[in-house]
Amino acid sequence: MHLPFAAAAEGDLAGVLLDLFVILLAAKLGDELFKRLGQPGIVGEILAGVLIGPSVLGWVAPDEVFQVFAELGVVFLLFWVGLETRLSDMRAVGASATTVGVLGVVFPFAGGVALGFALGDGSAEAIFLGVALTATSVGITSAVLIELGVVRTAAARTILGAAVIDDVLALLLLAVATGLADNGSLDVGDLGLVVGISLAFVAFFALVGTRVTQRWPRLLHAPRFSESPLLPAVLVCLGLAALAAEVGLAAVIGAFLAGMIIAETREQHPIEREVAPLYAFFPPFFFAFIGAELDLGALAGGGALALFAGLTALAIVTKYLGAWFGARALPFRERRVVAIGMIPRGEVGIIVAGIGASAGVIGDERFAVIVAMSVATTLLAPPLLRRVLNVDSAASRSS
Amino acid sequence: MHLPFAAAAEGDLAGVLLDLFVILLAAKLGDELFKRLGQPGIVGEILAGVLIGPSVLGWVAPDEVFQVFAELGVVFLLFWVGLETRLSDMRAVGASATTVGVLGVVFPFAGGVALGFALGDGSAEAIFLGVALTATSVGITSAVLIELGVVRTAAARTILGAAVIDDVLALLLLAVATGLADNGSLDVGDLGLVVGISLAFVAFFALVGTRVTQRWPRLLHAPRFSESPLLPAVLVCLGLAALAAEVGLAAVIGAFLAGMIIAETREQHPIEREVAPLYAFFPPFFFAFIGAELDLGALAGGGALALFAGLTALAIVTKYLGAWFGARALPFRERRVVAIGMIPRGEVGIIVAGIGASAGVIGDERFAVIVAMSVATTLLAPPLLRRVLNVDSAASRSS
Repeated sequence: MHLPFAAAAEGDLAGVLLDLFVILLAAKLGDELFKRLGQPGIVGEILAGVLIGPSVLGWVAPDEVFQVFAELGVVFLLFWVGLETRLSDMRAVGASATTVGVLGVVFPFAGGVALGFALGDGSAEAIFLGVALTATSVGITSAVLIELGVVRTAAARTILGAAVIDDVLALLLLAVATGLADNGSLDVGDLGLVVGISLAFVAFFALVGTRVTQRWPRLLHAPRFSESPLLPAVLVCLGLAALAAEVGLAAVIGAFLAGMIIAETREQHPIEREVAPLYAFFPPFFFAFIGAELDLGALAGGGALALFAGLTALAIVTKYLGAWFGARALPFRERRVVAIGMIPRGEVGIIVAGIGASAGVIGDERFAVIVAMSVATTLLAPPLLRRVLNVDSAASRSS
Repeated sequence: MHLPFAAAAEGDLAGVLLDLFVILLAAKLGDELFKRLGQPGIVGEILAGVLIGPSVLGWVAPDEVFQVFAELGVVFLLFWVGLETRLSDMRAVGASATTVGVLGVVFPFAGGVALGFALGDGSAEAIFLGVALTATSVGITSAVLIELGVVRTAAARTILGAAVIDDVLALLLLAVATGLADNGSLDVGDLGLVVGISLAFVAFFALVGTRVTQRWPRLLHAPRFSESPLLPAVLVCLGLAALAAEVGLAAVIGAFLAGMIIAETREQHPIEREVAPLYAFFPPFFFAFIGAELDLGALAGGGALALFAGLTALAIVTKYLGAWFGARALPFRERRVVAIGMIPRGEVGIIVAGIGASAGVIGDERFAVIVAMSVATTLLAPPLLRRVLNVDSAASRSS
């Protein structure tokens, strides 16, 4: 029914409010259902997104507003993780994180490019396939690590550090891939600039930012800017997320650094308490959005299904092995957690596929397959992580 | 600088994050500045919106994402007010609220229509001018009442009740206006349906909804739906807001009813604590959005300025007198608070002008003038309210 006021004035807004309501309700129900089944809640939230998305019921579409809420979801998720992380903890796992990040990119990239050439792709297309396999969705793993209460372990920090390195390398490879797709050649100076800026961004905020708040731990209150430290903290988070995205990194890296910087202030605990509702409100949109981007219809053909199965297996094996070898300095149990924790491609694989599609390098079927691989690896990792960590905690209890 | 990843992948999202950051930062700075000047913070937030909006700096445009955040801002604002309100309190002020609501619509509407005819408008255009003058922005007044800590007074409740009645009547008048604009005639049966549905919506949720939660005060926890009552409460708020908008009412009326319903549960206090961060995060977008919709350039002509001055004076005088006569049962001080509190047109006047513009009844200059009138009445009321309430509290202290 459409009445004049609704139709003309708040017609669009009424629809948007209804969409937000439906998404949040579906995600919350999926979360509750899966928790009762002894499964990670976020798997239920992603599947709720598949259900209400275009593939099944078609109630909501992954449009701009949904995407912005999803982006804020993963931004607040990583901000939260950053609040739980100290620079000194990151330094302690620095070497492992670097080798995990590097090998976790090299193995999948090589595997993806090789598969592309085996399928008869051109070099630009093959490189895109490789890049789509490299990216790690630290958001998904972080959510599971938070849910299981192990976000402060060495394994969790190794994953976080590796994800930062991973993102810088993926940025480099993506610059190569889009350069090849656009004009068939590469400008090495440009590539150096891309990588230099992104490394400078991370180094500056991780080192200088945390030192500033260490020295002036009441900075967020210093000029009596606000009664509550929440909005200043949210502004630091949004500002660094936007800046990271502007220099070409994932926005979540900026949010993570913002959390780390604020973790050094005396306000950390009140901020955690106040950010918690934002952390409860936004991330369900992120998980549901990943599910809503899946297009089951495009996977109906036998060729697409076979490619999906092969690509997913390749994504899992190459990332697991890369991270496994990279984490050789860690004890056995942590190595397994790190190797599994790097598997989810999540939104990052989907973003890379989207860039390839809009550059005209990746066709519709290939796009749907990469998205499906991203969702599949994302759904697989949480139960595996949970199992490994439960086994571990049982083992540690019996020891 | 545009790097490949930023430009292609997160280019739009980076821009959106940056916009959200700029809006929130500007609103917060405006808020702080005005509070230090002894003025209401929301005036600073609205002026910050004027400053960064298209009229002055042009840093942000009132686009869809900004509008959705603004809408959630006023939805969470009225949800918060609803949490502070009991049905029994509303009943106590019911008679006054009704006369304030009715006379607060009749006076401005008659004044607006008369002005329209005096300006040589056709009947549809004159009626739109009348409707644009009737609407009350309960969001603005509520924010000031919260800021001054008087949201639980009889005057505040009279304003809230009157705003609900006001909105139902504005819906009726708008249906008349759009009916006349669309086909030059009116279907009385349709109008009855519009009003009947909206009254039934308000009555059902106000009476049945609050009784349900009175009887089962742990309903939000009942099926162990969630560890925290926040998301269930937010879902009730979003759901009723969307439903209100679907039946043609303002979404904020649904949010206000949702707050009242939840105020009857035992969970009210934890929910207030948990909603507080959402209430800190979203409403600044609402105030800044109102400012960003102002188009100072369109007011440059002498005729537009004169019309703006006349319309603003008419808006203030007619609403003040209507509310003043309507509130004759209240003591003198409360009458003044109610009469001033009904003055802000805020987003509602802007929405009505937008409907008239998209129906082709209201031209560009007239649209800009109505928006400017809405912003002017909105900027004027908070300092006046503050003054009246401060004088009152000084008087009560000296007595």
